[in-house]
Amino acid sequence: METLSENACFGGVQGVYRHASLATQCDMTFGLFLPAEAKDGPVPVLWYLSGLTCTHENAMTKAGAQVWAAEQGIALVFPDTSPRGADVADHDDYDLGQGAGFYVNATQSPWAPHFRMWDYVADELPALLAENFPIDAERQSITGHSMGGHGALTLAMNLPGRFRSVSAFAPIANPTGSDWGRKQLSAYLGEDKAGWEKHDATLLMKATGFDGPLLIDTGTADQFIDLLRPEALAQAIAERRQQAITRMQPGYDHSYFFVSTFMEDHVTFHAEALYGD
Amino acid sequence: METLSENACFGGVQGVYRHASLATQCDMTFGLFLPAEAKDGPVPVLWYLSGLTCTHENAMTKAGAQVWAAEQGIALVFPDTSPRGADVADHDDYDLGQGAGFYVNATQSPWAPHFRMWDYVADELPALLAENFPIDAERQSITGHSMGGHGALTLAMNLPGRFRSVSAFAPIANPTGSDWGRKQLSAYLGEDKAGWEKHDATLLMKATGFDGPLLIDTGTADQFIDLLRPEALAQAIAERRQQAITRMQPGYDHSYFFVSTFMEDHVTFHAEALYGD
Repeated sequence: METLSENACFGGVQGVYRHASLATQCDMTFGLFLPAEAKDGPVPVLWYLSGLTCTHENAMTKAGAQVWAAEQGIALVFPDTSPRGADVADHDDYDLGQGAGFYVNATQSPWAPHFRMWDYVADELPALLAENFPIDAERQSITGHSMGGHGALTLAMNLPGRFRSVSAFAPIANPTGSDWGRKQLSAYLGEDKAGWEKHDATLLMKATGFDGPLLIDTGTADQFIDLLRPEALAQAIAERRQQAITRMQPGYDHSYFFVSTFMEDHVTFHAEALYGD
Repeated sequence: METLSENACFGGVQGVYRHASLATQCDMTFGLFLPAEAKDGPVPVLWYLSGLTCTHENAMTKAGAQVWAAEQGIALVFPDTSPRGADVADHDDYDLGQGAGFYVNATQSPWAPHFRMWDYVADELPALLAENFPIDAERQSITGHSMGGHGALTLAMNLPGRFRSVSAFAPIANPTGSDWGRKQLSAYLGEDKAGWEKHDATLLMKATGFDGPLLIDTGTADQFIDLLRPEALAQAIAERRQQAITRMQPGYDHSYFFVSTFMEDHVTFHAEALYGD
């Protein structure tokens, strides 16, 4: 693992690291914020999964999360959104290929074998963090934005016991019912829709739900709201009687100005779960 | 004036606007954050001047200032750092020409007539804001980073009565004694060093000082600290018995991770001056 940069930040360190990934068979870069408390021992961690077109860097520089993570003594992990490189398949569309991994393990050509973001985020990167940084693997929570909100919700519901809490900003909430989803799931997983179900937060909510608290914010002025389908997930949450807070935020759009506005609420929400019994 | 974007942000609006500038004889773009209180009438304003290579956008997305400005009910203005466009002179070096206006009125070819950032920030943009937005011109303060810290300090000391308080993050504090300064002042203003004095915060501090509170943060691990010369300004502040807080922040560098870490302190500092008697 190679250190690309480390900057002092809110009393802790904002680092960027690169490593050869077995899951994606290419070099992967991630950001990691460690609060000051990490000098004294393992700290809880909040995963932040990013949206379409993002790298590890966007949220790390624009989401304004470090200030609240430092206040709570929580680490933040910012993975990339796909494999990258000249040898890695790509597509002219911004919402397919590099920058658009959708947090699945691709089975279809040309996306397999590199596009295995599920294994990367669920298994490989957690193991790497546990080995190299003072992260408490027993205290993990997860959040994300847009495609990353989809990733956070589907990881949380597929891995019961892994995350103490889950939240999302403007998540792609029902990808099997949206052009942000059908296109990518077809390309990466093929046309057999049985394989899609574990990658749809609304279907997972109907099937199993999440064994902990859940928070979702979506802006009423989100320019992509018809693709996000928050109404499908809200209905499923209510039908399941899932412990949850779902908020429609008046006037907010899909941008990082929306994400940063509600970041304090999300970090505080996760801190309560991470520091609870 | 044209609205390029407006995003809901911390209960207010983060806007980006473009207008034809008389001062720089080209189109100029700036960011303006208006807090929720601006709906009810004029609000105080904090100017944020950016550093080398930045546009209006960097601080607007990376400095994490809106959260604190919203808390205090203060507007934030993010001007660009130079004139721009195919017709505007430029230089291969990152620290001269477009993105490096240095907040002066150039007198030398090829920089005159476009490079008149002093007039733009001191006169034209304030008038434009007063005309178009609920900004209280009687309650203005100013800050900036690096070259923008230089701009903030020199504007504040040259325009007594204009700004109630001034602060800076890692300012270029003594440009006439630094390669970040001599090169640009020579190019823009010519070799007659008499014209340089009003563009050097240390020389201005020796000559006149500032009629209000002053706050400066610089990181001890700033990779450009030899070019910033904080020691020259610190000495001049102490010799003048200027009301000031100057802080050397251990381990911090020149990045926006440094700026965002101390932004709350700066906005709070200015709020005290803006809401005082």
